[in-house]
Amino acid sequence: MNLNCPMPKLDFDTITLGHGSGGKLTNILLDSGVFEVLKNDILDKRHDGAVLDLKGKTAFTTDSFVISPIFFPGGNIGELAVNGTVNDLAMCGAIPRHLSLSFIIEEGLPMTEFWDILVSIRDACIASGVQVVTGDTKVVERGKGDKVFINTTGIGELHPEAAIDLNRIEPGDKVILSGELAAHGMAIMSVREGLEFESQIESDTQPLNHLVKDLLDEAGTDIKLLRDPTRGGVATVLNEIARDRALGIRIAQHDLPINEQVAGACEILGLDPLYVANEGLCLAVVAEAAVDPFLKTCQANPAGHFAKVIGTVTEEHPKKVVMTSGIGGKRVVNMLTGEQLPRIC
Amino acid sequence: MNLNCPMPKLDFDTITLGHGSGGKLTNILLDSGVFEVLKNDILDKRHDGAVLDLKGKTAFTTDSFVISPIFFPGGNIGELAVNGTVNDLAMCGAIPRHLSLSFIIEEGLPMTEFWDILVSIRDACIASGVQVVTGDTKVVERGKGDKVFINTTGIGELHPEAAIDLNRIEPGDKVILSGELAAHGMAIMSVREGLEFESQIESDTQPLNHLVKDLLDEAGTDIKLLRDPTRGGVATVLNEIARDRALGIRIAQHDLPINEQVAGACEILGLDPLYVANEGLCLAVVAEAAVDPFLKTCQANPAGHFAKVIGTVTEEHPKKVVMTSGIGGKRVVNMLTGEQLPRIC
Repeated sequence: MNLNCPMPKLDFDTITLGHGSGGKLTNILLDSGVFEVLKNDILDKRHDGAVLDLKGKTAFTTDSFVISPIFFPGGNIGELAVNGTVNDLAMCGAIPRHLSLSFIIEEGLPMTEFWDILVSIRDACIASGVQVVTGDTKVVERGKGDKVFINTTGIGELHPEAAIDLNRIEPGDKVILSGELAAHGMAIMSVREGLEFESQIESDTQPLNHLVKDLLDEAGTDIKLLRDPTRGGVATVLNEIARDRALGIRIAQHDLPINEQVAGACEILGLDPLYVANEGLCLAVVAEAAVDPFLKTCQANPAGHFAKVIGTVTEEHPKKVVMTSGIGGKRVVNMLTGEQLPRIC
Repeated sequence: MNLNCPMPKLDFDTITLGHGSGGKLTNILLDSGVFEVLKNDILDKRHDGAVLDLKGKTAFTTDSFVISPIFFPGGNIGELAVNGTVNDLAMCGAIPRHLSLSFIIEEGLPMTEFWDILVSIRDACIASGVQVVTGDTKVVERGKGDKVFINTTGIGELHPEAAIDLNRIEPGDKVILSGELAAHGMAIMSVREGLEFESQIESDTQPLNHLVKDLLDEAGTDIKLLRDPTRGGVATVLNEIARDRALGIRIAQHDLPINEQVAGACEILGLDPLYVANEGLCLAVVAEAAVDPFLKTCQANPAGHFAKVIGTVTEEHPKKVVMTSGIGGKRVVNMLTGEQLPRIC
């Protein structure tokens, strides 16, 4: 229940197929609070599309969110959908500005759940400074969806100092993680598996755009790549970089920042944290000279407090990611094969 | 089967949860032809987002497509998803340029069906002159989706002569339909109901952007509103205009352009064609002085061949749409209540 934004009294308790008809019931659903909660000058025009004034180069990215359960420790599908797309824009080196928001709802979704998701979307938009400017609502029959899926597509303005380009990565560049890994995946997994810990593991879902803006202000073109290691985790992103740039990456296990409880949960479930999804983490490849100011900027920002150098780009073992273990052994870290944690975002 | 773009030999026949993992299988799926089919300079960068150079004012619109069945007479969900968003951009008075493309696939979807959808997406993009520049693929468990849902979100550049604004509508303006109504909804409905006619009713799914560009070149600011009457049909759009502008609209039943077979199918099923969805139709509100050049431009374009004036904006009966019947009687046309045809787009 959102005490700061209570649901208005409505004469329906659940969402029905009719609410996706495009007719009267769709209008009733939208007027029941959707437009009011997400209110802004552009959305208020209620046309099929929004008209925007954009400056400079524009970043554009899309994600559909199908996470299950839709409410999880540390967040829900609504804020995840905003933060996820905001972060993808930030990873392009952009300042996120506008979002589209599209729901695919399974009939029978309680209005109270829809409302809580909506208010979380609003709060996440405020936190990252973006506006929902256009949207769509579809409803499918029971058993043809799963509560709610959300697509967010985002537009951002490229930061003037951004030069994010995989091809600029060189041997000697450093790989930095902005925080502790594997929290999101393990939060979802512990709910699904019914694991109980002393304190609950929470998803790390958070917007990274303010951190990234500070980093670009500070380190500019010395930042060669930004990626958020969501599905597939850190290992998959590192492998994609190594493959696409035909260089090697060397990481050390003891450098990986990880919360003790998350590490414990991974061990219990036999999961490698390198493959577990993150939702508030940035992986950066940075010129060696810029590492210190980069880390300093991270640490001055709550979203980057636990930032750490985790590896180095090498000429050796091209297209391979090699990890030194705690006891000095070496192993190749492959890309995630198969589905480790389905519907994690 | 697409003979002009055959599916490559693959070692998997259906899409599995692993193909949505973000890891190795996702890469295998994307490399199996997705990137090749949709190939363009921007998509080829394979970053999480695209970076675009846009000129002038930008239109932005989103739609999720959940149509069932995914293959229907006259089209499939793939081309519908492209045409639908292209048309929403056109209705803003924009020249469509870039699309994002996001799939939510139910595990078990045959690769041949996915491939056919993909090739249709490519062909629809070529027909309307847009590029898919960024995308996303999620897979949900059997029974948690329905074959495939597609979100397309589009970006377009506003036509320099466009002044689409509901508030510019005045009494005396004319309402024009660009073609025959109700074909899309009746094509879907006749498949669902197993109706057989002498010749099959086909969806009118088609891109309207070339027609709209010609109309804006010709009639410019005399075009006050453009809307595509999809879900909820022509009646819902007319009611939204009347409500939001607080003016009346008068239409005459005998002016409504409708194919004889479609009219017959509506009669058999007891459906009012004014409420049936269209996917290749544009409803325009135009200053009276511009009606002749508007119609002439329509008729010179295959997408506007059957264009007709269907009504007039009036000061009388504000917020109401009133229709004169064939025998001279008058009735109020309300907004669609409830769900007439679920999952029509």
